[in-house]
Amino acid sequence: MNALPAEHDANTLAAQVRDGTRSAGDVVRDALDRIRRHDAILNCFTLLREDEALAEADAVDRAIARGQAAGPLSGVPFAVKNLFDVTGVTTIAGSSVLAGAPPAPRDADAVARLRRAGAVLLGCLNMDEFAYGFSTENAHHGDTANPHDPSRIAGGSSGGSAAAVAAGFVPLSLGSDTNGSIRVPASLCGVYGLKPTFGRLSRRGAFPFVHSLDHVGPFARTVRDLSLCYDLMQGSDPEDPAQARRAPEPATPDLEQGIDGSRVALLGGWFRRGASAQALRAADRVAAALGAAETVELPDAERARSAAFCLTGAEGGALHRDRLATDMDRYDPAVRDRLLAGLLQPAGVAVEAQRLRSSFRAQARDLFGRVDLLVAPATPFPAVRRGQATIELDGQQVPARANMGLYTQPISFIGLPALSVPVLDGEDLPIGVQIIGRPWDEALLLRAASALERAGIVGCRTLNFR
Amino acid sequence: MNALPAEHDANTLAAQVRDGTRSAGDVVRDALDRIRRHDAILNCFTLLREDEALAEADAVDRAIARGQAAGPLSGVPFAVKNLFDVTGVTTIAGSSVLAGAPPAPRDADAVARLRRAGAVLLGCLNMDEFAYGFSTENAHHGDTANPHDPSRIAGGSSGGSAAAVAAGFVPLSLGSDTNGSIRVPASLCGVYGLKPTFGRLSRRGAFPFVHSLDHVGPFARTVRDLSLCYDLMQGSDPEDPAQARRAPEPATPDLEQGIDGSRVALLGGWFRRGASAQALRAADRVAAALGAAETVELPDAERARSAAFCLTGAEGGALHRDRLATDMDRYDPAVRDRLLAGLLQPAGVAVEAQRLRSSFRAQARDLFGRVDLLVAPATPFPAVRRGQATIELDGQQVPARANMGLYTQPISFIGLPALSVPVLDGEDLPIGVQIIGRPWDEALLLRAASALERAGIVGCRTLNFR
Repeated sequence: MNALPAEHDANTLAAQVRDGTRSAGDVVRDALDRIRRHDAILNCFTLLREDEALAEADAVDRAIARGQAAGPLSGVPFAVKNLFDVTGVTTIAGSSVLAGAPPAPRDADAVARLRRAGAVLLGCLNMDEFAYGFSTENAHHGDTANPHDPSRIAGGSSGGSAAAVAAGFVPLSLGSDTNGSIRVPASLCGVYGLKPTFGRLSRRGAFPFVHSLDHVGPFARTVRDLSLCYDLMQGSDPEDPAQARRAPEPATPDLEQGIDGSRVALLGGWFRRGASAQALRAADRVAAALGAAETVELPDAERARSAAFCLTGAEGGALHRDRLATDMDRYDPAVRDRLLAGLLQPAGVAVEAQRLRSSFRAQARDLFGRVDLLVAPATPFPAVRRGQATIELDGQQVPARANMGLYTQPISFIGLPALSVPVLDGEDLPIGVQIIGRPWDEALLLRAASALERAGIVGCRTLNFR
Repeated sequence: MNALPAEHDANTLAAQVRDGTRSAGDVVRDALDRIRRHDAILNCFTLLREDEALAEADAVDRAIARGQAAGPLSGVPFAVKNLFDVTGVTTIAGSSVLAGAPPAPRDADAVARLRRAGAVLLGCLNMDEFAYGFSTENAHHGDTANPHDPSRIAGGSSGGSAAAVAAGFVPLSLGSDTNGSIRVPASLCGVYGLKPTFGRLSRRGAFPFVHSLDHVGPFARTVRDLSLCYDLMQGSDPEDPAQARRAPEPATPDLEQGIDGSRVALLGGWFRRGASAQALRAADRVAAALGAAETVELPDAERARSAAFCLTGAEGGALHRDRLATDMDRYDPAVRDRLLAGLLQPAGVAVEAQRLRSSFRAQARDLFGRVDLLVAPATPFPAVRRGQATIELDGQQVPARANMGLYTQPISFIGLPALSVPVLDGEDLPIGVQIIGRPWDEALLLRAASALERAGIVGCRTLNFR
């Protein structure tokens, strides 16, 4: 377990490109080489923009040579979950159903902001079909393998995004999180993943799944990179009504500030049940390092998780209803069945789930009246084997995939910001811990993660995909 | 068809009580006499507060004798749909299921405001069970008969409230409107009924049916009475979250102001389909009298009406789920089946209905960019016979009860204020026309109704329940 080599860090790469130590072309060629050498094993990319990326890197170099202002991500390679619109590319959202759709006329808001900052888009990344899954075992594009053990799942639905960063293919990637789809693969692949507050970042140009639960966010291998990438995506976008209406003014997080004076608590109750010993130890370690003074509960967490499940099926099913009627046999069978089951739930269930959302939000609001940060496992266990249907927990075989979301779903259900940090615990497989804050307090999460990183509690391991 | 006798007018009665021409005791005794003589036929009241009302009337008289300030409704008798909380009375909401519940510890907000203004509550009025119906044919308490022809329905679900006012038992009553439950019985009983903007009046203490669609509002036999009663119920109430958050500052309507300069349009399309010749003539007459310059459409009105139907079943079903599980056989069979069907709809239907609500609201907002008032029939036909299942329209037999809401449901679905005016058209049975405004513009509706009343186009007929 070693510290991350500096040359893989987006901040460092951008500084090198800006000061001429390296060219953007060199950085991008390097990344493309790694991907070509190793992605046959990992299967992160569903589309690689080799020629375009090299041309764009050359353009960055020429601009710098002309003395033009270079952005904070000048020449930094990145890649995005294939549900983000990329100009000229058909947005497939992990499916074959959309393969015949016209190419996107412009970039998704998040993609456009990173490219404006000088980042170079290498391609699009694998995911569960239509983001409905926690494993990135995709019937159309194959499984994405976990870089720590390719016989295991990467987690999902943003599995390609987490694995590409963990493998060192790119220092930054984008994913989306509806029930845990950033935090779960971040945990399983041992990288940082941030799901900001609902409404903080624009979702314009990201293929929707559940309107009231969808978030976009970054993956990175250092907190500094994660923070920079998040910060560059902030800003109001009238084209995402949820975003434009809600988000307060963006502020750049100050990672050096620490979290002195913040009240930290470990989440107990539901967030301790059904977890492996490794997950519990990881959460305890992070909580202790952050000076957690108590264990607190969100009493309705279990019901909130069920409600998130039900609403996901209802809203996701409604979104796909017309397409299912004509193209049902073109869907990934596992996803098709989830959508149909969701669509056909009794309507009263959706109404009650909405009602619970209001009361659970109030419960969290009360809790954040006396604490500032909550700590909980991101996943109950590390990556299971690809194809593995169940896992033994407390002596019982439970479904491996659905249970990945036990601890993430109650949090995204009410839109709280959550950051999954990779704990350095000496185990074979990585596991992540969620740091959860009150709405709009992403800066505090990033400062806590930075303090943990400086203390050597969390961090990304170096892997051999060089 | 005669003008309304002045002694039945709430404004006149209150003035007489205040200046000593009549005592409140005399007014209340008079009203109770009428009710005792005729309510065996009409069946408006499920509870009569004879002793309490007389004692309260005497208290009004004593206060006036002592020279204390008399409220604007001093000594005016009124009655309320039996879903309103009345201190010391069990709120039954038209059902036997709640008969064993404890008495309400305090008045509903609307009831309390009218009593503070000096009004004397005579009792509680019949309704469809749990407000789920358009006919006030109640399995527990019997049908409420239409005062214009007791072999016919009063309409519902606030049928007791409309019939009690039409018969002259009380000059004012309160009802609730979720899909048309004020406007439909107002139309069928030939009285004025106002469904204010969603969120304008507090619903605190009114037994709920569909949280996102429930409104409370008044019935009266003159526009002046309707306006006064509405105005007295205005005011912020933190205990109804929907009301407290939304309603702008109350303003007292000025009925003398007229509607000069307002742009009036007749609603076409959906609002002309399936209507009887009488309903169309009534709407045309009102539109012409208000100077309507054009016929306009709300293109998604039909879908909005369907969506309101679906959401009503889903939300209403969810509200009653637990009670249905234990007390199903104590429900009115017709209502039970509506609730179960609503509860068991596919969840995707509720999601799509919510989505349509947003787009339909935008459609109405656009329309109100170029008009100020819309005119449409309140019901497609006048009162059908009690027990009559179908009615012939355009040569087809269609369900008589459900079709009562054809034109009211799209309007309440997006919370627009609507006032049903009784058209004086010389037909045997009355029919009402909706005047519909933009959100919070109740004052303009009342001014339009007042202008129509002064012009002799609308008004309440005198009936022989003396």
